Amino acid sequence: MAICIGIVGYGNVGRGVEAAVSHHKDMELAGIFTRRNPQGLASLSGAPVYGLEALLHPESLEKKPDVLVLCTGSATDLPEQTPLLAQYYCVVDSFDTHACIPEHFAKVNQSALQGGTAALISTGWDPGLFSMARVLGDAVLPGSHAETFWGRGVSQGHSDAIRRIPGVKDARQYTVPVKSALDAVRKGEAGALTPRQKHTRECYVVLEEGADPEAVAKAIITMPHYFDEYDTSVTFISEEEMQAQHCAMPHAGQVLRQGVTGDGANAAFVGFEVAIDSNPQFTGSILLAFARGIYRFYQEGKRGCFTALDMPLSALSPLSRDELLATML
Amino acid sequence: MAICIGIVGYGNVGRGVEAAVSHHKDMELAGIFTRRNPQGLASLSGAPVYGLEALLHPESLEKKPDVLVLCTGSATDLPEQTPLLAQYYCVVDSFDTHACIPEHFAKVNQSALQGGTAALISTGWDPGLFSMARVLGDAVLPGSHAETFWGRGVSQGHSDAIRRIPGVKDARQYTVPVKSALDAVRKGEAGALTPRQKHTRECYVVLEEGADPEAVAKAIITMPHYFDEYDTSVTFISEEEMQAQHCAMPHAGQVLRQGVTGDGANAAFVGFEVAIDSNPQFTGSILLAFARGIYRFYQEGKRGCFTALDMPLSALSPLSRDELLATML
Repeated sequence: MAICIGIVGYGNVGRGVEAAVSHHKDMELAGIFTRRNPQGLASLSGAPVYGLEALLHPESLEKKPDVLVLCTGSATDLPEQTPLLAQYYCVVDSFDTHACIPEHFAKVNQSALQGGTAALISTGWDPGLFSMARVLGDAVLPGSHAETFWGRGVSQGHSDAIRRIPGVKDARQYTVPVKSALDAVRKGEAGALTPRQKHTRECYVVLEEGADPEAVAKAIITMPHYFDEYDTSVTFISEEEMQAQHCAMPHAGQVLRQGVTGDGANAAFVGFEVAIDSNPQFTGSILLAFARGIYRFYQEGKRGCFTALDMPLSALSPLSRDELLATML
Repeated sequence: MAICIGIVGYGNVGRGVEAAVSHHKDMELAGIFTRRNPQGLASLSGAPVYGLEALLHPESLEKKPDVLVLCTGSATDLPEQTPLLAQYYCVVDSFDTHACIPEHFAKVNQSALQGGTAALISTGWDPGLFSMARVLGDAVLPGSHAETFWGRGVSQGHSDAIRRIPGVKDARQYTVPVKSALDAVRKGEAGALTPRQKHTRECYVVLEEGADPEAVAKAIITMPHYFDEYDTSVTFISEEEMQAQHCAMPHAGQVLRQGVTGDGANAAFVGFEVAIDSNPQFTGSILLAFARGIYRFYQEGKRGCFTALDMPLSALSPLSRDELLATML
């Protein structure tokens, strides 16, 4: 029996999940659930499109989803939607506001326990795979220090922040790791690094007609938290250049850990990295592996909220225990 | 309460575990258990040294171990010792004869279920961390292919194989990944690779007096499985050079995976790597993280045999669930 997936939210990540379903042979798509008018929307895969409220009336659906994959935003959507939907369905989300994860966890846990479901929050590649790499490295090299680098890749959050500046028509921000810092961390020679030492930020901006480039550039470079702690470059381009050269959503990242073993003279390095042409499609594929895991947890009788750190690798895999023992160890 | 560790076997890995205990703040050493005469042995840490048979009379020990870390050989020791000791203790081993893992698992599982203990087999960095990386990559990038590279580092198995050749007094074998193959796999341009395309083998050999170098070199280079499928170099050195330049046990390795997302046009890369000055100390530290995990499994009431693939990252970590949520996701 295929695991029946419902996609909530039909933006970049929702379409990424949709594109990933055909790669996960034990899964099928129950439908896409959107806040927009479903009448006007045809899905890329041909899966049925419903309004969000259809989830509260499962008898109206062709197939009831075994797991909902929530693909809406961390800022305002997921804090409401994940606890709400976890009362009725097993759910997976990619909530990535790191500072608010404990609060989100507590709310979702309460809902899932009340509803008798299993939920998994805050997965994708960071948080998610990178969280697993951080904990694994910390466990096997106690006392060591991990550095996470991101890029070269498009940051949606930073791109959105630029788009909110008056005079900006469109923008794309690339986060770029500083090579000398990467090399120093790999060699164990880095010490404490500031944000400026670790990453630079490249901004490509299309201006509204008549906007002042100098004012826009200054507004970007001095923006607190987003840009003021980094070396930032701003390049103004035409709308055509934006479409032609910056419509892809590549990303990459690394969790690098240097430690010592024994009496301290012996260096030890553990690294995990990803590099992807399509951030939404890779994120979508990760979300589906965790949808498989949380569905298995549910079938085993586990209830409540979980994270990537609670999930054994075997639960993520479509392979049986015998296949894993024979081929993967 | 600290987790009380017993080390079985006092060779390189056993001493590596001993050196790692002080880094794992929630652990203490109950003792070292050896086949040799314990009278003649003082441990580096000052921990008591017992004969192996003392494990069958725990009343004779100062402290009874919560978990035994088995540090003897995969060829003949662990297939007997792990099932035997799992009847009485929670155990962790690093059994690494990949083809025999299913059989070893079945035997240890039966013993642990009979004895009411929890056992974890075949961990270290490969099998172990690399197994986890292989399964994680396969789950999030279905249909992709992983390549594992080892080195540059000392292979104990290949060094031992050379030492068994008549006329060889001592030997050290370095496994070296082929850089062009590494680069091709990272770029997704590799295709199927033969053993010869992936690794070369460098052998440093001290001859017995009067031994024929040509005969020894030929015996090495043509040795089935170990060397005949590789480009192998043999360098004869003096006993002094061996001591001065080849007494360390560094190693390294990478699990590299290239796949595609979506309709196949978008590349995705996932990589995991380690590079270590002391293979036995790093392996020892990993074994202790899994000793923590299996002890928690035991405390939760889990019984039987497990592998690294059954263990959530949270079980390996000394941090509490709240600490993990707040700091590691």
